[in-house]
Amino acid sequence: MSSNLLKGNAVIGQSGGPTAVINQSLVGVIEGLAGSLCINKVLGARHAVSGIIKNDFIELQDIPQDRLDRLAQTPSAALGSSRDKPDAEYCKKIFDVFAKQNVRYFFYIGGNDSSDTCRIVNELAKKENYELRCFHVPKTIDNDLVNNDHTPGFPSAAKFVAQAFIGDNLDNRALPGIKINIIMGRHAGFLTAASMLARQHDDDGPHLIYVPEVAFDIEKFKADVADVYSRLGRCLIAVSEGIHDENGTSIMTTLAAEVEKDAHGNVQLSGTGALGDYLSTLLKDHLGKDTRVRADTFGYLQRCFAGCVSQTDAHEARLAGRTAAELALAGEHDGSIAIQRISNSPYEVEYKRIELSDVAAKTQTLDPKYIMHGNDIDASFRDYLAPLVGELPVVESLRTH
Amino acid sequence: MSSNLLKGNAVIGQSGGPTAVINQSLVGVIEGLAGSLCINKVLGARHAVSGIIKNDFIELQDIPQDRLDRLAQTPSAALGSSRDKPDAEYCKKIFDVFAKQNVRYFFYIGGNDSSDTCRIVNELAKKENYELRCFHVPKTIDNDLVNNDHTPGFPSAAKFVAQAFIGDNLDNRALPGIKINIIMGRHAGFLTAASMLARQHDDDGPHLIYVPEVAFDIEKFKADVADVYSRLGRCLIAVSEGIHDENGTSIMTTLAAEVEKDAHGNVQLSGTGALGDYLSTLLKDHLGKDTRVRADTFGYLQRCFAGCVSQTDAHEARLAGRTAAELALAGEHDGSIAIQRISNSPYEVEYKRIELSDVAAKTQTLDPKYIMHGNDIDASFRDYLAPLVGELPVVESLRTH
Repeated sequence: MSSNLLKGNAVIGQSGGPTAVINQSLVGVIEGLAGSLCINKVLGARHAVSGIIKNDFIELQDIPQDRLDRLAQTPSAALGSSRDKPDAEYCKKIFDVFAKQNVRYFFYIGGNDSSDTCRIVNELAKKENYELRCFHVPKTIDNDLVNNDHTPGFPSAAKFVAQAFIGDNLDNRALPGIKINIIMGRHAGFLTAASMLARQHDDDGPHLIYVPEVAFDIEKFKADVADVYSRLGRCLIAVSEGIHDENGTSIMTTLAAEVEKDAHGNVQLSGTGALGDYLSTLLKDHLGKDTRVRADTFGYLQRCFAGCVSQTDAHEARLAGRTAAELALAGEHDGSIAIQRISNSPYEVEYKRIELSDVAAKTQTLDPKYIMHGNDIDASFRDYLAPLVGELPVVESLRTH
Repeated sequence: MSSNLLKGNAVIGQSGGPTAVINQSLVGVIEGLAGSLCINKVLGARHAVSGIIKNDFIELQDIPQDRLDRLAQTPSAALGSSRDKPDAEYCKKIFDVFAKQNVRYFFYIGGNDSSDTCRIVNELAKKENYELRCFHVPKTIDNDLVNNDHTPGFPSAAKFVAQAFIGDNLDNRALPGIKINIIMGRHAGFLTAASMLARQHDDDGPHLIYVPEVAFDIEKFKADVADVYSRLGRCLIAVSEGIHDENGTSIMTTLAAEVEKDAHGNVQLSGTGALGDYLSTLLKDHLGKDTRVRADTFGYLQRCFAGCVSQTDAHEARLAGRTAAELALAGEHDGSIAIQRISNSPYEVEYKRIELSDVAAKTQTLDPKYIMHGNDIDASFRDYLAPLVGELPVVESLRTH
């Protein structure tokens, strides 16, 4: 079972929400497998597991290097993605295709659900005495994989959020008012917390940051905003889409009821702009209808925006894929590639194989030490985040000099 | 009255919605005035006209060059902005402050309302025989000034929209469905049309583009989307926030009524995400509740995003400001600086003085020749736009090769 010369085909898939660097990992795997006598075909699964069970593959072993390089720099999942979360039966179908196609190497680039798919397929193969090498390559802008310092995709999304806030803080300073920005993250607040990188001068926003790690208290929120607004004449706010009350009920649901009660009807539950619009209405009711309150929901822009990539992220995503391929060829049977920080100054990481079960279906959240007063992120978070994001535009002010 | 050696102070103001390059124009004016024996102080009006009438100025004549260069690269209006639209009485107050402070040079960076303010203040000065040189420096992401090939701020906003669509098109291809993106522009569709720059390969989105220059027909919209969706299995749509029906009623209002009627209540009129959410609901009702429909509203991100600036735009904004200063010092009394294209290949422009009344309070819209079937933008628009935006990220596809 542990032969180093396991010969057959390889399958690569990309799963879940795409990122700006997920194709770096795809290319990393392709490059890691290139030239090996063990590998016959490198098959890209179209739309992840849904392509595997439909036998919908695209051959990747003969793509010239210049095209690979361009592909690596292309945002989103070039193979297509899927939101399918395979159960045992679904995994059985995957395994059946693998057995039939002599697939001996499986690389799945995705979040914690994807690592769980790897784990189940791997166990099926073991039960059938079918030798298969199963590797999970991490990817998620949510940065919520356990046993990882951070995950590919997150630094680039964080860079987008930081650059958006640098500009929006200056916009809000030029035309003062209250501005709410809704950021992705249902359970983990890493991406919302990244907005703090925008602070360069005194009084720079975001002035308030709300993450899903702490219960969101609507009354406290109103008071927080009123306080900043009376002090600065403006207020820039970062809010995770996943904020919820102390019972775990999402604020979308709670606010919908409250706004409906206050304004007599006219609440829409569906649609992506709704949370920001509810919070706006709430603040206008509290501070007066003439208060300038605006809300933007960053939405899908933050995960695949072309031309806003962290170079560290691009490099690490490529190496994570490459490491998975090299470990598989070297005889390792399975695992997930974890990026772990060895040193912060100079910034240095290692790519470590961990067990699939050490990452599968678990969620990492923000360390409580970073969360201040339930409405802000501590300055020390910059030490963690800045090396991942890299250089940001430096802005000049006529106010603070 | 036409002495070339008019001595006194200068005032610079920045008005309306900020842009990513409006500080280039500010610095251009400062640089253009630097060293002139005619100029005593260069006064920046805090928050535009509202700062002038409150005598709220900041001195700008002694800022060192390295700080000016950083300031020029900083998005948004460093002096602060204002939405005030001065009437005759307001302009009288402006003039009174100018006369009291021996202000002889006035530079106002803004859109068509700002040029009108220049015009009125200028006429007051003439009536009082007070020699004043009044210049308007163009700025608007809407690109809607007449007698201008394009306006500073628009190319950078267009670059943001194009890069957002490049990424979002790939996101939508990876996880297919219907995606609506709402773009700024109440009367002019230039910025929404800029989404077409994202098309690099066959089948790339946006597949449909709706601008406010043509009446929006809800039934046609549903049919358009259904057609693309059945053909491609996905549909990426660019929509101007300003779309309206044939009577000029905004679609926000029309749809609110329709959605309410269809879904029995629950419509919210206020809030920035609302139009996208309405259109989503509409399409889900038409195509089935299980259809994946998402909407993002680009909002304020598109005008001041840090780190997504067209270099051509930055350069031209600087030169527009500088030209205004140089013309004023050379003895011209008033005018607006219009950017006019001399040649497209190689791309070349000139900065021409035009009369304030030739730009004031007028709105330029998209040439009808660019609008196809009421739901798309012709490929020839790329010839106009590409030189302004500059290089965009080139993406690779596994599908089309």
